Amino acid sequence: MTGDGPAADDRLDRIFLGRVVEPGDEVSGRWVRERGVREVVRRLRDDGEPLPGVTARRWAGLLARAGQADPRRDLAVAREAGVRYVCPGDAEWPGTLDELGDARPLGLWVRGRPSLRMWALRSVALVGARACTPYGAHMAATLACGLAERGWVVVSGGAYGVDGAAHRGALGAGGATVAVLASGVDRPYPSGHTELIGRIAEQGLVVGELPPGDHPTPSRFILRNRVIAALTRGTVVVEAAYRSGSLVTARAAQRLGRHTMGVPGPATSALSAGVHELLRGEAVLVTDAAEVVELVGDMGELAPDRRGPQLPRDLLEPGARRVLAALPARRSAAPPEIAREAGTTPDDAIARLYELRALGYVERHGDGWKLTRQAMVSVRGGRPRC
Amino acid sequence: MTGDGPAADDRLDRIFLGRVVEPGDEVSGRWVRERGVREVVRRLRDDGEPLPGVTARRWAGLLARAGQADPRRDLAVAREAGVRYVCPGDAEWPGTLDELGDARPLGLWVRGRPSLRMWALRSVALVGARACTPYGAHMAATLACGLAERGWVVVSGGAYGVDGAAHRGALGAGGATVAVLASGVDRPYPSGHTELIGRIAEQGLVVGELPPGDHPTPSRFILRNRVIAALTRGTVVVEAAYRSGSLVTARAAQRLGRHTMGVPGPATSALSAGVHELLRGEAVLVTDAAEVVELVGDMGELAPDRRGPQLPRDLLEPGARRVLAALPARRSAAPPEIAREAGTTPDDAIARLYELRALGYVERHGDGWKLTRQAMVSVRGGRPRC
Repeated sequence: MTGDGPAADDRLDRIFLGRVVEPGDEVSGRWVRERGVREVVRRLRDDGEPLPGVTARRWAGLLARAGQADPRRDLAVAREAGVRYVCPGDAEWPGTLDELGDARPLGLWVRGRPSLRMWALRSVALVGARACTPYGAHMAATLACGLAERGWVVVSGGAYGVDGAAHRGALGAGGATVAVLASGVDRPYPSGHTELIGRIAEQGLVVGELPPGDHPTPSRFILRNRVIAALTRGTVVVEAAYRSGSLVTARAAQRLGRHTMGVPGPATSALSAGVHELLRGEAVLVTDAAEVVELVGDMGELAPDRRGPQLPRDLLEPGARRVLAALPARRSAAPPEIAREAGTTPDDAIARLYELRALGYVERHGDGWKLTRQAMVSVRGGRPRC
Repeated sequence: MTGDGPAADDRLDRIFLGRVVEPGDEVSGRWVRERGVREVVRRLRDDGEPLPGVTARRWAGLLARAGQADPRRDLAVAREAGVRYVCPGDAEWPGTLDELGDARPLGLWVRGRPSLRMWALRSVALVGARACTPYGAHMAATLACGLAERGWVVVSGGAYGVDGAAHRGALGAGGATVAVLASGVDRPYPSGHTELIGRIAEQGLVVGELPPGDHPTPSRFILRNRVIAALTRGTVVVEAAYRSGSLVTARAAQRLGRHTMGVPGPATSALSAGVHELLRGEAVLVTDAAEVVELVGDMGELAPDRRGPQLPRDLLEPGARRVLAALPARRSAAPPEIAREAGTTPDDAIARLYELRALGYVERHGDGWKLTRQAMVSVRGGRPRC
């Protein structure tokens, strides 16, 4: 949870602006970059001189929305619902989102225990058709399970079809999963996934750009996809027809230099046609989780566990430090055992373990977690850093 | 049919040597390249000084086989069965086979009317599993039909499964197809395909390296695949398990700089696993005939119809010239009509039309054939060259 620190005004300004402009709007993104959030909010709130790049009519529309904005109330409602606001400058802000340039989110509303930043370091997006085939659902669940068992975080959009199968596959493997919604995170969409999204918020993270209570629109679904692409190391499209929204995510991932992958299907299946189109371009064909990890794990510059822990143990959060200390020295242990030892819940232990995984302290092997060689060396060496 | 011309001795020497060494044997290929066929045959027939690169025991084995060879009898048996021998130096020899280097066939036994060289210019290999799924058979037949309708020649191995479906798909579309066998072309293998291979010899071509009456072995199947790869502009693998022989064809095609393509299938299908492995490498994913043609048709240097006819009309064989003359000036016509006009059979007309297609004189559109613009210009210009 992020408190009101020195950035409290900036936080309130961003929440205010998030009520006025649409997600991914690059015109206002440019205003923020060139003039700062403060000045943009001042002009909108105090009916100041119009900012450039919009018509008078559009400016009037923005002023009308600004008149309704109440960031303190949004923050209070969110806190009541167990939702925090994470924005640039926060320790939990995932730096990879900055690569979106002027389309960078103003901030993200977050439900769930783990650190979004830590989890994003080791995450893969699994996306695809809502109206998927049984084959697509099977592949999404199987890939998600395999990624979870390898210590990777599965990110998807919380929708029916491939998204839901991916989240469930990760949850079922006792793994980590993040749902990026196109609605307020307190107002899950689709409503038929209320229970699933609640479970994700318990065991993982539910995030979104839109303020509490807000609803999705077609363009919000499309623009949500850039967040999924930017947050993750790579995007896997499981099933997608021509012109599917999942292809938007894949192309956003390509533009951002992320790995783009596709799961093949029968050439006779309309729901694989979009994936095949991708695979005829730059995307890499994958058929199992090992092939996904082979690709996304091969980014030396982003793989902290290849260079050893980057974060000294004494900078770990107390919760993560306790979980790390609870791991046995020479064998692997399952989350319930680790949780008992650390004096916390299994869900919290899993959240911490995935964070520690991102930092190179621990590894997941099937159901068990163990210290990495590097972590063990620093223990054995008798010079504990925490 | 190639008569005994000035190269008669060379032809008999090659047939002799083909009885002694195995297809694709690079040691004897090097002997031929360095010393000439004549000298190699002399040493083997007259029990001369052993040639380098083989053990004494192996040399003795070759001498034993040489003692049984009777090239005049082979040629007579072949002629009786309507089979001709095509070798380097013949007008019908496909120059692309020379790219096999020391593994180049000594010659090919050929059944069927069309010119192997002409047909090879516009050919694509469709290969895959013998024990294919109904999906694989469907895709092979559909691709073959689509390629045939676009005026391309479908080359395959005459086997059960994908091969058979490909040949049948081309035949069913009134198209051109070539079976490259790993047995003597008068002794079709598998015997269950005797009727199919007979039909291919009627409407297309049946070719092979092995002399009349010879039988296939596992290594002959593997080495046959290099001929399929070298003969064609590209190879499409429809279904193949890991370590399938079709992958040998695909890798041979890659080494020869040919286009290599694969048809995707479910990631859960063991019979698509080999194809997916290829597609994770250099091979291009294809889902229909248009995508295949887009790729193989894009080789300017090998596409004679892009630069206009290369062979002047007065160098065309009389049969091809008659078929060309039988085409109506401004509309398309079907093979039976063209055959009537040219005074030949529909099968012969089809054989000639595909040769003329390779030379850029005619185009196929669905069921009809018509003169290309270039051919019409030379007719309209009033200066017929034949």
